[in-house]
Amino acid sequence: MKTKLYAIGVGPGDPELLTLKAKRIMNSVDVLLCPVKKMGASSYALEIVSPNLDEDVHVFELLYPMHYDKDALNTQWIENGLIISNLLKSGKSCAFITLGDPTVYSTFMYTLPYIDEAYFDLEVVPGITSFCAVAAVAKQPLMLWEEGLTIIPVRKNDREALMASIQAHENIVLMKPTSDTSAIISILKALKLEDKFMLISKVGREDTLVITDIEALEKGKLPYLSTMIIKKGGFYA
Amino acid sequence: MKTKLYAIGVGPGDPELLTLKAKRIMNSVDVLLCPVKKMGASSYALEIVSPNLDEDVHVFELLYPMHYDKDALNTQWIENGLIISNLLKSGKSCAFITLGDPTVYSTFMYTLPYIDEAYFDLEVVPGITSFCAVAAVAKQPLMLWEEGLTIIPVRKNDREALMASIQAHENIVLMKPTSDTSAIISILKALKLEDKFMLISKVGREDTLVITDIEALEKGKLPYLSTMIIKKGGFYA
Repeated sequence: MKTKLYAIGVGPGDPELLTLKAKRIMNSVDVLLCPVKKMGASSYALEIVSPNLDEDVHVFELLYPMHYDKDALNTQWIENGLIISNLLKSGKSCAFITLGDPTVYSTFMYTLPYIDEAYFDLEVVPGITSFCAVAAVAKQPLMLWEEGLTIIPVRKNDREALMASIQAHENIVLMKPTSDTSAIISILKALKLEDKFMLISKVGREDTLVITDIEALEKGKLPYLSTMIIKKGGFYA
Repeated sequence: MKTKLYAIGVGPGDPELLTLKAKRIMNSVDVLLCPVKKMGASSYALEIVSPNLDEDVHVFELLYPMHYDKDALNTQWIENGLIISNLLKSGKSCAFITLGDPTVYSTFMYTLPYIDEAYFDLEVVPGITSFCAVAAVAKQPLMLWEEGLTIIPVRKNDREALMASIQAHENIVLMKPTSDTSAIISILKALKLEDKFMLISKVGREDTLVITDIEALEKGKLPYLSTMIIKKGGFYA
Protein backbone atom coordinates (compact mmCIF):
# COMPACT_ATOMS: atom_id res chain seq x y z
CA MET A 1 0.00 0.00 0.00
CA LYS A 2 1.24 3.48 -0.80
CA THR A 3 1.54 6.25 1.73
CA LYS A 4 2.30 9.90 1.25
CA LEU A 5 5.77 11.40 0.88
CA TYR A 6 6.03 15.18 0.85
CA ALA A 7 9.01 17.30 -0.15
CA ILE A 8 8.51 20.64 1.56
CA GLY A 9 10.37 23.85 0.82
CA VAL A 10 10.77 25.86 4.03
CA GLY A 11 12.12 29.01 2.40
CA PRO A 12 15.40 30.88 2.83
CA GLY A 13 15.56 31.38 6.59
CA ASP A 14 12.80 33.61 7.98
CA PRO A 15 10.32 31.28 9.76
CA GLU A 16 7.48 33.53 8.57
CA LEU A 17 8.35 32.79 4.92
CA LEU A 18 6.93 29.31 5.39
CA THR A 19 3.74 28.72 3.38
CA LEU A 20 0.42 27.87 4.99
CA LYS A 21 0.57 24.55 3.15
CA ALA A 22 4.03 23.67 4.49
CA LYS A 23 2.87 24.45 8.02
CA ARG A 24 -0.26 22.31 7.70
CA ILE A 25 1.49 19.32 6.16
CA MET A 26 4.54 19.22 8.43
CA ASN A 27 2.22 19.09 11.43
CA SER A 28 0.06 16.33 9.93
CA VAL A 29 2.62 13.68 8.92
CA ASP A 30 3.88 10.75 10.98
CA VAL A 31 7.55 11.58 10.46
CA LEU A 32 9.35 14.84 9.67
CA LEU A 33 12.62 14.10 7.84
CA CYS A 34 15.33 16.67 8.58
CA PRO A 35 18.70 16.85 6.83
CA VAL A 36 21.66 17.38 9.18
CA LYS A 37 25.37 17.84 8.41
CA LYS A 38 26.36 15.57 11.30
CA MET A 39 24.19 13.30 13.38
CA GLY A 40 23.22 15.26 16.47
CA ALA A 41 24.11 18.58 14.85
CA SER A 42 21.39 21.20 14.48
CA SER A 43 19.39 21.29 11.26
CA TYR A 44 18.93 24.72 9.71
CA ALA A 45 15.71 23.59 7.99
CA LEU A 46 14.40 22.38 11.37
CA GLU A 47 15.35 25.70 13.02
CA ILE A 48 13.29 27.50 10.38
CA VAL A 49 10.15 25.42 10.93
CA SER A 50 10.50 25.09 14.73
CA PRO A 51 8.39 28.13 15.72
CA ASN A 52 5.47 26.61 13.77
CA LEU A 53 6.03 22.95 14.53
CA ASP A 54 3.74 21.16 16.96
CA GLU A 55 5.47 19.51 19.91
CA ASP A 56 4.27 16.02 19.13
CA VAL A 57 5.72 15.77 15.61
CA HIS A 58 8.25 12.96 15.27
CA VAL A 59 11.49 14.48 13.94
CA PHE A 60 13.85 12.08 12.21
CA GLU A 61 17.39 13.14 11.27
CA LEU A 62 19.02 12.16 7.99
CA LEU A 63 22.73 12.62 7.42
CA TYR A 64 23.76 14.82 4.49
CA PRO A 65 27.47 15.64 4.88
CA MET A 66 28.73 18.99 3.55
CA HIS A 67 31.48 17.83 1.25
CA TYR A 68 31.66 17.29 -2.49
CA ASP A 69 32.96 13.74 -2.80
CA LYS A 70 30.27 12.47 -5.15
CA ASP A 71 30.91 8.78 -4.54
CA ALA A 72 30.61 9.17 -0.77
CA LEU A 73 27.54 11.36 -1.20
CA ASN A 74 25.96 8.83 -3.50
CA THR A 75 26.48 6.08 -0.91
CA GLN A 76 24.80 8.33 1.65
CA TRP A 77 21.84 9.01 -0.64
CA ILE A 78 21.33 5.28 -1.21
CA GLU A 79 21.38 4.74 2.55
CA ASN A 80 18.96 7.62 3.19
CA GLY A 81 16.73 6.35 0.40
CA LEU A 82 16.60 2.97 2.13
CA ILE A 83 15.77 4.53 5.50
CA ILE A 84 12.95 6.58 3.95
CA SER A 85 11.68 3.56 1.98
CA ASN A 86 11.45 1.54 5.19
CA LEU A 87 9.52 4.29 6.97
CA LEU A 88 7.09 4.54 4.03
CA LYS A 89 6.81 0.76 3.78
CA SER A 90 5.74 0.62 7.42
CA GLY A 91 2.87 2.93 6.49
CA LYS A 92 4.26 6.12 7.98
CA SER A 93 3.62 9.31 6.02
CA CYS A 94 6.77 11.41 5.75
CA ALA A 95 7.66 15.02 4.99
CA PHE A 96 11.22 15.86 3.97
CA ILE A 97 12.02 19.50 4.73
CA THR A 98 14.46 21.32 2.52
CA LEU A 99 15.90 24.86 2.52
CA GLY A 100 14.43 27.19 -0.08
CA ASP A 101 12.52 25.25 -2.73
CA PRO A 102 12.69 21.47 -3.27
CA THR A 103 13.35 21.86 -7.01
CA VAL A 104 16.30 24.25 -6.63
CA TYR A 105 19.52 22.42 -5.65
CA SER A 106 17.82 20.41 -2.92
CA THR A 107 19.20 17.34 -1.17
CA PHE A 108 15.75 15.81 -1.52
CA MET A 109 16.03 15.56 -5.31
CA TYR A 110 19.36 13.75 -5.01
CA THR A 111 17.73 11.18 -2.74
CA LEU A 112 14.45 10.73 -4.61
CA PRO A 113 15.77 8.21 -7.18
CA TYR A 114 16.74 5.91 -4.28
CA ILE A 115 13.36 5.86 -2.54
CA ASP A 116 11.37 2.78 -3.52
CA GLU A 117 8.50 4.03 -5.64
CA ALA A 118 6.34 1.05 -4.65
CA TYR A 119 5.64 2.67 -1.29
CA PHE A 120 4.68 6.30 -1.84
CA ASP A 121 2.84 9.00 -3.69
CA LEU A 122 4.97 12.11 -3.92
CA GLU A 123 3.79 15.66 -3.43
CA VAL A 124 6.21 18.56 -3.77
CA VAL A 125 5.36 21.74 -1.85
CA PRO A 126 7.24 24.71 -3.30
CA GLY A 127 9.12 27.18 -1.12
CA ILE A 128 10.51 30.71 -1.35
CA THR A 129 13.85 30.59 -3.18
CA SER A 130 16.95 32.32 -1.87
CA PHE A 131 17.22 34.46 -5.01
CA CYS A 132 13.69 35.83 -4.60
CA ALA A 133 14.41 36.56 -0.93
CA VAL A 134 17.60 38.33 -1.96
CA ALA A 135 15.80 40.43 -4.59
CA ALA A 136 13.19 41.31 -1.94
CA VAL A 137 15.91 42.58 0.42
CA ALA A 138 17.47 44.49 -2.48
CA LYS A 139 13.99 45.85 -3.38
CA GLN A 140 14.84 45.28 -7.03
CA PRO A 141 13.04 43.46 -9.83
CA LEU A 142 14.88 40.36 -11.03
CA MET A 143 13.30 40.82 -14.43
CA LEU A 144 10.79 43.06 -16.19
CA TRP A 145 8.94 42.99 -19.48
CA GLU A 146 10.58 40.69 -21.98
CA GLU A 147 13.77 40.19 -20.02
CA GLY A 148 15.01 36.78 -18.99
CA LEU A 149 16.93 35.69 -15.91
CA THR A 150 19.91 33.39 -15.66
CA ILE A 151 20.95 31.77 -12.40
CA ILE A 152 24.56 30.61 -12.26
CA PRO A 153 26.28 28.74 -9.42
CA VAL A 154 29.85 30.03 -9.17
CA ARG A 155 32.59 27.43 -9.22
CA LYS A 156 36.27 27.78 -8.51
CA ASN A 157 38.66 27.98 -11.45
CA ASP A 158 35.97 28.52 -14.04
CA ARG A 159 36.62 32.14 -14.88
CA GLU A 160 36.23 31.92 -18.65
CA ALA A 161 32.84 30.23 -18.60
CA LEU A 162 31.65 32.65 -15.93
CA MET A 163 32.83 35.63 -17.98
CA ALA A 164 31.03 34.32 -21.06
CA SER A 165 27.80 33.77 -19.12
CA ILE A 166 27.84 37.21 -17.54
CA GLN A 167 28.59 38.73 -20.92
CA ALA A 168 25.71 36.90 -22.60
CA HIS A 169 22.88 37.77 -20.20
CA GLU A 170 20.91 40.83 -19.12
CA ASN A 171 19.88 39.75 -15.61
CA ILE A 172 22.07 37.37 -13.66
CA VAL A 173 21.96 35.80 -10.23
CA LEU A 174 25.28 34.38 -9.02
CA MET A 175 24.86 31.71 -6.36
CA LYS A 176 27.76 31.32 -3.90
CA PRO A 177 29.82 34.14 -5.44
CA THR A 178 32.38 33.78 -2.64
CA SER A 179 33.55 30.57 -4.33
CA ASP A 180 35.64 32.87 -6.53
CA THR A 181 35.25 36.48 -5.47
CA SER A 182 38.44 37.64 -7.17
CA ALA A 183 37.29 36.24 -10.53
CA ILE A 184 33.96 38.06 -10.17
CA ILE A 185 35.65 41.35 -9.30
CA SER A 186 37.88 41.19 -12.36
CA ILE A 187 34.95 40.21 -14.60
CA LEU A 188 32.82 43.10 -13.28
CA LYS A 189 35.71 45.47 -14.03
CA ALA A 190 36.45 44.01 -17.46
CA LEU A 191 32.80 44.29 -18.49
CA LYS A 192 32.38 47.73 -16.87
CA LEU A 193 29.68 46.45 -14.56
CA GLU A 194 31.07 48.06 -11.40
CA ASP A 195 27.78 49.92 -10.89
CA LYS A 196 25.50 47.11 -11.99
CA PHE A 197 25.79 44.61 -9.16
CA MET A 198 24.46 44.04 -5.66
CA LEU A 199 25.87 41.51 -3.26
CA ILE A 200 23.48 40.51 -0.49
CA SER A 201 24.57 38.41 2.49
CA LYS A 202 22.78 36.69 5.36
CA VAL A 203 19.25 37.27 4.12
CA GLY A 204 16.59 37.00 6.81
CA ARG A 205 19.02 37.69 9.65
CA GLU A 206 19.59 40.74 11.79
CA ASP A 207 23.00 41.36 10.23
CA THR A 208 21.91 41.36 6.56
CA LEU A 209 24.56 43.05 4.44
CA VAL A 210 24.12 44.75 1.04
CA ILE A 211 27.25 45.69 -0.90
CA THR A 212 27.03 47.80 -4.07
CA ASP A 213 30.54 49.25 -4.03
CA ILE A 214 33.29 47.37 -5.88
CA GLU A 215 35.93 48.59 -3.43
CA ALA A 216 33.95 47.20 -0.49
CA LEU A 217 33.77 43.94 -2.43
CA GLU A 218 37.55 43.95 -2.82
CA LYS A 219 38.25 44.72 0.82
CA GLY A 220 35.56 42.65 2.47
CA LYS A 221 35.81 39.18 3.91
CA LEU A 222 32.46 38.11 2.48
CA PRO A 223 30.13 35.67 4.21
CA TYR A 224 29.62 32.25 2.61
CA LEU A 225 25.85 32.83 2.51
CA SER A 226 25.96 35.51 -0.17
CA THR A 227 24.19 36.02 -3.48
CA MET A 228 24.98 38.52 -6.22
CA ILE A 229 22.50 40.14 -8.59
CA ILE A 230 23.85 41.71 -11.78
CA LYS A 231 21.46 43.87 -13.80
CA LYS A 232 22.92 45.45 -16.90
CA GLY A 233 19.93 47.79 -17.14
CA GLY A 234 20.87 49.05 -13.68
CA PHE A 235 19.03 49.23 -10.38
CA TYR A 236 16.24 51.35 -8.99
CA ALA A 237 17.51 54.29 -6.95
CA MET B 1 6.04 61.32 7.97
CA LYS B 2 6.68 57.99 6.36
CA THR B 3 4.32 55.06 6.55
CA LYS B 4 4.77 51.49 5.45
CA LEU B 5 4.30 50.20 1.90
CA TYR B 6 4.46 46.44 1.38
CA ALA B 7 4.76 44.57 -1.91
CA ILE B 8 3.43 41.10 -1.20
CA GLY B 9 3.82 38.04 -3.41
CA VAL B 10 0.73 35.85 -3.10
CA GLY B 11 2.12 32.90 -5.05
CA PRO B 12 0.93 31.18 -8.21
CA GLY B 13 -2.71 30.42 -7.43
CA ASP B 14 -3.20 27.96 -4.57
CA PRO B 15 -4.37 30.02 -1.56
CA GLU B 16 -2.35 27.71 0.71
CA LEU B 17 0.88 28.75 -1.02
CA LEU B 18 0.61 32.11 0.71
CA THR B 19 3.35 32.67 3.30
CA LEU B 20 2.62 33.23 6.97
CA LYS B 21 4.19 36.67 6.60
CA ALA B 22 1.96 37.63 3.67
CA LYS B 23 -1.10 36.55 5.66
CA ARG B 24 -0.10 38.55 8.73
CA ILE B 25 0.77 41.72 6.85
CA MET B 26 -2.21 41.82 4.49
CA ASN B 27 -4.51 41.63 7.54
CA SER B 28 -2.65 44.37 9.41
CA VAL B 29 -2.49 47.21 6.86
CA ASP B 30 -4.96 50.04 6.40
CA VAL B 31 -5.39 49.45 2.66
CA LEU B 32 -4.93 46.35 0.50
CA LEU B 33 -4.06 47.39 -3.07
CA CYS B 34 -5.35 44.93 -5.68
CA PRO B 35 -4.54 45.05 -9.38
CA VAL B 36 -7.55 44.51 -11.67
CA LYS B 37 -7.75 44.31 -15.46
CA LYS B 38 -10.90 46.40 -15.51
CA MET B 39 -12.48 48.42 -12.73
CA GLY B 40 -15.10 46.19 -11.13
CA ALA B 41 -13.59 43.03 -12.65
CA SER B 42 -12.38 40.33 -10.29
CA SER B 43 -8.74 40.35 -9.21
CA TYR B 44 -6.92 37.02 -9.40
CA ALA B 45 -4.49 38.09 -6.67
CA LEU B 46 -7.47 38.99 -4.47
CA GLU B 47 -9.13 35.62 -5.16
CA ILE B 48 -5.94 33.90 -3.99
CA VAL B 49 -5.77 35.76 -0.69
CA SER B 50 -9.53 35.85 -0.02
CA PRO B 51 -9.76 32.63 2.05
CA ASN B 52 -7.22 34.12 4.48
CA LEU B 53 -8.31 37.76 4.38
CA ASP B 54 -10.15 39.24 7.35
CA GLU B 55 -13.53 40.77 6.54
CA ASP B 56 -12.66 44.25 7.75
CA VAL B 57 -9.66 44.80 5.46
CA HIS B 58 -10.13 47.78 3.14
CA VAL B 59 -9.63 46.52 -0.43
CA PHE B 60 -8.72 49.16 -3.00
CA GLU B 61 -8.67 48.34 -6.71
CA LEU B 62 -6.00 49.66 -9.06
CA LEU B 63 -6.40 49.43 -12.82
CA TYR B 64 -3.72 47.50 -14.72
CA PRO B 65 -5.03 46.86 -18.26
CA MET B 66 -3.91 43.69 -20.05
CA HIS B 67 -2.47 45.16 -23.23
CA TYR B 68 1.06 45.99 -24.32
CA ASP B 69 0.81 49.61 -25.40
CA LYS B 70 3.73 50.89 -23.32
CA ASP B 71 2.75 54.56 -23.52
CA ALA B 72 -0.77 53.88 -22.29
CA LEU B 73 0.58 51.57 -19.59
CA ASN B 74 3.06 54.19 -18.49
CA THR B 75 0.28 56.74 -18.13
CA GLN B 76 -1.63 54.23 -16.01
CA TRP B 77 1.40 53.56 -13.78
CA ILE B 78 1.89 57.27 -13.19
CA GLU B 79 -1.77 57.56 -12.25
CA ASN B 80 -1.60 54.52 -9.93
CA GLY B 81 1.62 55.86 -8.42
CA LEU B 82 -0.21 59.11 -7.62
CA ILE B 83 -3.15 57.27 -6.05
CA ILE B 84 -0.80 55.20 -3.88
CA SER B 85 1.28 58.26 -2.95
CA ASN B 86 -1.87 60.03 -1.77
CA LEU B 87 -2.93 57.07 0.35
CA LEU B 88 0.54 56.90 1.93
CA LYS B 89 0.65 60.68 2.39
CA SER B 90 -2.57 60.50 4.39
CA GLY B 91 -0.78 58.10 6.74
CA LYS B 92 -2.44 54.89 5.57
CA SER B 93 -0.20 51.82 5.46
CA CYS B 94 -0.66 49.90 2.20
CA ALA B 95 0.05 46.40 0.90
CA PHE B 96 0.15 45.84 -2.87
CA ILE B 97 -0.59 42.20 -3.68
CA THR B 98 0.99 40.67 -6.73
CA LEU B 99 0.78 37.22 -8.37
CA GLY B 100 3.80 35.01 -7.78
CA ASP B 101 6.75 37.02 -6.49
CA PRO B 102 7.03 40.85 -6.53
CA THR B 103 10.48 40.76 -8.16
CA VAL B 104 9.47 38.50 -11.07
CA TYR B 105 7.57 40.42 -13.78
CA SER B 106 5.28 42.16 -11.32
CA THR B 107 3.06 45.16 -11.98
CA PHE B 108 4.23 46.52 -8.65
CA MET B 109 7.78 47.05 -9.86
CA TYR B 110 6.51 49.02 -12.88
CA THR B 111 4.62 51.34 -10.53
CA LEU B 112 7.28 51.75 -7.83
CA PRO B 113 9.27 54.50 -9.58
CA TYR B 114 6.10 56.64 -9.63
CA ILE B 115 5.30 56.39 -5.92
CA ASP B 116 6.61 59.42 -4.04
CA GLU B 117 9.46 58.15 -1.89
CA ALA B 118 8.93 60.93 0.63
CA TYR B 119 5.96 59.06 2.07
CA PHE B 120 6.93 55.44 2.61
CA ASP B 121 9.35 52.76 3.72
CA LEU B 122 9.17 49.78 1.38
CA GLU B 123 9.20 46.15 2.41
CA VAL B 124 9.05 43.42 -0.22
CA VAL B 125 7.60 40.07 0.87
CA PRO B 126 8.66 37.32 -1.52
CA GLY B 127 6.18 34.81 -2.93
CA ILE B 128 6.25 31.39 -4.59
CA THR B 129 7.12 31.82 -8.26
CA SER B 130 5.13 30.17 -11.03
CA PHE B 131 8.20 28.27 -12.24
CA CYS B 132 8.81 26.69 -8.82
CA ALA B 133 5.13 25.74 -8.63
CA VAL B 134 5.37 24.22 -12.10
CA ALA B 135 8.48 22.21 -11.19
CA ALA B 136 6.67 21.00 -8.05
CA VAL B 137 3.75 19.73 -10.15
CA ALA B 138 6.22 18.11 -12.55
CA LYS B 139 8.09 16.65 -9.51
CA GLN B 140 11.35 17.51 -11.22
CA PRO B 141 14.43 19.42 -10.11
CA LEU B 142 14.93 22.69 -11.97
CA MET B 143 18.67 22.38 -11.37
CA LEU B 144 21.13 20.15 -9.55
CA TRP B 145 24.80 20.37 -8.61
CA GLU B 146 26.63 22.96 -10.67
CA GLU B 147 23.88 23.43 -13.21
CA GLY B 148 22.37 26.82 -13.92
CA LEU B 149 18.85 27.80 -14.89
CA THR B 150 17.69 30.22 -17.53
CA ILE B 151 14.20 31.67 -17.57
CA ILE B 152 13.04 33.02 -20.91
CA PRO B 153 9.76 34.78 -21.70
CA VAL B 154 8.64 33.66 -25.15
CA ARG B 155 7.85 36.41 -27.64
CA LYS B 156 6.20 36.22 -31.03
CA ASN B 157 8.42 36.36 -34.09
CA ASP B 158 11.65 35.86 -32.22
CA ARG B 159 12.47 32.34 -33.35
CA GLU B 160 16.20 32.79 -33.91
CA ALA B 161 16.96 34.28 -30.51
CA LEU B 162 14.83 31.62 -28.85
CA MET B 163 16.63 28.87 -30.73
CA ALA B 164 20.02 30.29 -29.70
CA SER B 165 18.97 30.53 -26.05
CA ILE B 166 17.61 27.01 -25.93
CA GLN B 167 20.76 25.75 -27.62
CA ALA B 168 23.04 27.55 -25.15
CA HIS B 169 21.52 26.35 -21.86
CA GLU B 170 21.15 23.14 -19.89
CA ASN B 171 17.99 23.91 -17.93
CA ILE B 172 15.40 26.24 -19.37
CA VAL B 173 12.04 27.56 -18.26
CA LEU B 174 9.94 29.07 -21.04
CA MET B 175 7.33 31.51 -19.74
CA LYS B 176 4.19 31.93 -21.87
CA PRO B 177 5.26 29.33 -24.44
CA THR B 178 1.88 29.63 -26.16
CA SER B 179 3.04 33.02 -27.50
CA ASP B 180 4.71 30.99 -30.25
CA THR B 181 4.00 27.28 -29.85
CA SER B 182 4.85 26.41 -33.45
CA ALA B 183 8.32 27.98 -33.11
CA ILE B 184 8.93 25.97 -29.95
CA ILE B 185 7.83 22.73 -31.57
CA SER B 186 10.17 23.22 -34.51
CA ILE B 187 13.06 24.19 -32.21
CA LEU B 188 12.50 21.11 -30.02
CA LYS B 189 12.60 18.96 -33.16
CA ALA B 190 15.62 20.69 -34.67
CA LEU B 191 17.60 20.28 -31.43
CA LYS B 192 16.34 16.72 -30.87
CA LEU B 193 14.75 17.69 -27.56
CA GLU B 194 11.42 15.93 -28.20
CA ASP B 195 11.90 13.87 -25.01
CA LYS B 196 13.42 16.62 -22.91
CA PHE B 197 10.47 18.93 -22.27
CA MET B 198 7.42 19.17 -20.05
CA LEU B 199 4.59 21.61 -20.61
CA ILE B 200 2.51 22.27 -17.51
CA SER B 201 -0.76 24.21 -17.62
CA LYS B 202 -3.13 25.63 -15.04
CA VAL B 203 -0.97 24.95 -12.01
CA GLY B 204 -2.87 24.86 -8.73
CA ARG B 205 -6.20 24.12 -10.38
CA GLU B 206 -8.27 20.97 -10.58
CA ASP B 207 -7.63 20.65 -14.31
CA THR B 208 -3.82 20.85 -14.23
CA LEU B 209 -2.39 19.46 -17.44
CA VAL B 210 1.09 17.98 -18.03
CA ILE B 211 2.18 17.35 -21.63
CA THR B 212 5.41 15.48 -22.38
CA ASP B 213 4.53 14.22 -25.85
CA ILE B 214 5.48 16.36 -28.84
CA GLU B 215 2.48 15.12 -30.83
CA ALA B 216 0.12 16.18 -28.06
CA LEU B 217 1.85 19.55 -28.17
CA GLU B 218 1.22 19.79 -31.90
CA LYS B 219 -2.42 18.78 -31.67
CA GLY B 220 -3.41 20.60 -28.52
CA LYS B 221 -5.04 23.96 -28.12
CA LEU B 222 -2.84 24.96 -25.21
CA PRO B 223 -4.01 27.15 -22.33
CA TYR B 224 -2.52 30.65 -22.01
CA LEU B 225 -1.41 29.85 -18.44
CA SER B 226 1.29 27.37 -19.48
CA THR B 227 4.98 27.00 -18.67
CA MET B 228 7.53 24.73 -20.32
CA ILE B 229 10.54 23.15 -18.66
CA ILE B 230 13.36 21.90 -20.89
CA LYS B 231 16.05 19.76 -19.27
CA LYS B 232 18.74 18.48 -21.59
CA GLY B 233 19.87 16.01 -18.95
CA GLY B 234 16.37 14.55 -19.05
CA PHE B 235 13.70 14.03 -16.44
CA TYR B 236 13.20 11.67 -13.54
CA ALA B 237 11.08 8.65 -14.45
